[in-house]
Amino acid sequence: MDRERDDLAIEDLAWNADGLIPAIAQQHDTGEVLMLAWMDREALRRTLDEGRAWYWSRSRSSYWMKGETSGAVQDVVDVRYDCDADALLLLVDQQGPGACHTGERTCFYRRIEAVPEGAAQEGGRP
Amino acid sequence: MDRERDDLAIEDLAWNADGLIPAIAQQHDTGEVLMLAWMDREALRRTLDEGRAWYWSRSRSSYWMKGETSGAVQDVVDVRYDCDADALLLLVDQQGPGACHTGERTCFYRRIEAVPEGAAQEGGRP
Repeated sequence: MDRERDDLAIEDLAWNADGLIPAIAQQHDTGEVLMLAWMDREALRRTLDEGRAWYWSRSRSSYWMKGETSGAVQDVVDVRYDCDADALLLLVDQQGPGACHTGERTCFYRRIEAVPEGAAQEGGRP
Repeated sequence: MDRERDDLAIEDLAWNADGLIPAIAQQHDTGEVLMLAWMDREALRRTLDEGRAWYWSRSRSSYWMKGETSGAVQDVVDVRYDCDADALLLLVDQQGPGACHTGERTCFYRRIEAVPEGAAQEGGRP
């Protein structure tokens, strides 16, 4: 790997006041959004170096390789960043039954049941 | 809409110290991740009431209906929240050419070119 290029890309990102950036993990082939977690520079370096997703746990103040204990690791296919460079999108191959500690495939398994019926399904503007 | 149920769901979310939550917008049928933006409670209420995505602009400190000036509105199909209730996933029908102000379909159009080649594509663990 080209360390210089890597570090340049990392420093180009808009890290927040805590030195963190939100990272969305998406299953690369199905498009399923699996989870959102946070990275600092070192977590991103480890992710790029190892091809496995590493995050920063804000609650535990520690690095966390996704699946290190559960086996539900995320092999990283691609890392993208957005137009204002303050969010990451990781395309991953989720190993194991799923991304969520609850056993669900994705962490986004609950819905807010309040969207007006037919608002978008009808395709028109109200 | 059931205002009581809606407010309950909104208060159940883990708003951060600034009263915000990150919201991922995903094209509901293709699975494309379009953008990540932020909402406060009022932005989420407007989103649920109107079936159109509203966000809170941290840089401008103002509400922002996505596409209000460009026409690239997001009709909301579903709103999901994650296992620890600190992130939202909006399934939307993106109108107009795309979600990004640059004219790109998605804001995540750039990649960090540093993932080890074949790390995940080979499917095995090193």
